[in-house]
Amino acid sequence: MPVEMKLTALPDFPLVKPGDSLPGLIKASLNQAEMSLQDGDILVLAQKIVSKAEDRLVDLNQVHPGEAAEALAAETGKDARLLDVILGESRNIIRKGPGLVIVQHKLGFICANAGVDHSNVQGYEGGDWVLMLPEDPDASAQRIRAALELTYGVRIGVLIIDSHGRAWRNGTVGIAIGVAGIQALQDLRGHPDLFGEILRSTQVGVADELAAAASILMGQADEGRPVILVRGWPHAPGEGLLPDLLRPEEMDLFR
Amino acid sequence: MPVEMKLTALPDFPLVKPGDSLPGLIKASLNQAEMSLQDGDILVLAQKIVSKAEDRLVDLNQVHPGEAAEALAAETGKDARLLDVILGESRNIIRKGPGLVIVQHKLGFICANAGVDHSNVQGYEGGDWVLMLPEDPDASAQRIRAALELTYGVRIGVLIIDSHGRAWRNGTVGIAIGVAGIQALQDLRGHPDLFGEILRSTQVGVADELAAAASILMGQADEGRPVILVRGWPHAPGEGLLPDLLRPEEMDLFR
Repeated sequence: MPVEMKLTALPDFPLVKPGDSLPGLIKASLNQAEMSLQDGDILVLAQKIVSKAEDRLVDLNQVHPGEAAEALAAETGKDARLLDVILGESRNIIRKGPGLVIVQHKLGFICANAGVDHSNVQGYEGGDWVLMLPEDPDASAQRIRAALELTYGVRIGVLIIDSHGRAWRNGTVGIAIGVAGIQALQDLRGHPDLFGEILRSTQVGVADELAAAASILMGQADEGRPVILVRGWPHAPGEGLLPDLLRPEEMDLFR
Repeated sequence: MPVEMKLTALPDFPLVKPGDSLPGLIKASLNQAEMSLQDGDILVLAQKIVSKAEDRLVDLNQVHPGEAAEALAAETGKDARLLDVILGESRNIIRKGPGLVIVQHKLGFICANAGVDHSNVQGYEGGDWVLMLPEDPDASAQRIRAALELTYGVRIGVLIIDSHGRAWRNGTVGIAIGVAGIQALQDLRGHPDLFGEILRSTQVGVADELAAAASILMGQADEGRPVILVRGWPHAPGEGLLPDLLRPEEMDLFR
């Protein structure tokens, strides 16, 4: 029996509004497609729908940028109001330049603009809206998981993902920013390889690999496929968290 | 009809030896599983089997390390013979430290040990064997693609992947080192997003996302699943190459 993994985009997922229940919308979408959840399934959610449901929107017209944001605006040419939001979401700035701000987000990872995104939030009433990342994506993933496990009586995983640029390589890729019910890292240290040699230091970022996989089906320019159901995940369940995936600064050679 | 993508590991794939025909082994494995190839399918191959088929093995017992390798061995504590092979595969060293050498490979990407790998090459006759990356993975992918397209009369893609560590995040992830028949980057610049705003600079590293996806099924510690068949790739065919995925040094903030 071949080892298989299938990714299915939940069809006709509606636009998400602040206050919406994501477990409710997921259940409705599954019902409509005559699908259900099984033990071991993983749901991968685009960050944007989680942020919207959690009302992480900011109207730039209501932002009065502080001194740091104004100085950074002069240096980068970016909107000082947007930079004020970005700085509020960040621990520190990693790189900056014309049109470019790469930060360490409060949550610990390194990304452009602290994940604050202008696109795809028009359509809300008036204003000049931007969307911040969820306040605590691990907790969001855990809540969504718990609600769906209760509804369906199964054990599942939930991943919340975003798209990040990378050092050295072109193109963004999907990466995990919130994890529940799966191991984020798979540690192969100490496992014998095919010929019995002991692997010395192989940790695999399986949650990020799954985020990348799901990102393929989500696409970028529309919100039509923000939830991907993964069936056939070949790893055991676990209790991973975002911090598992983040290299401590003292072990990081590239800041 | 839901958007779906299915990844299937070719079952019972044999151990690959120098000189083996990978298209031949792939065809035999497909036949055995009563599977075939369809238009739009993508085959993702682990680098190790391509390197072995191409006889990219070096016996460290036959290596006489040069001065640069000896100096680097003193600095890092690594085997001077292995370092000699690594340096021969590299353009330059990006970071070094105890037990650690991160280089820019001759092929352009940045990775640990120039992708030279000690594990899983025992079993060959005598010696202390290590495996180098394929000489020209884009060309390897193109050859394998051409042979299988001829055999099956379909249009497919072929990806050769390795596992790389990353800046900032724990865990290796699958990444593409050879590309044929698919776009490596998907450029969303100029596409209107859901509410009509124009996306400004979104390039998506779809080949790397697919490499990560396939890597989930391959696992690490065995060679039992080195070929993954992907069906349902949602992007158009294309003629991507590894260099599409590599950020030019002058645009790279993290070296």
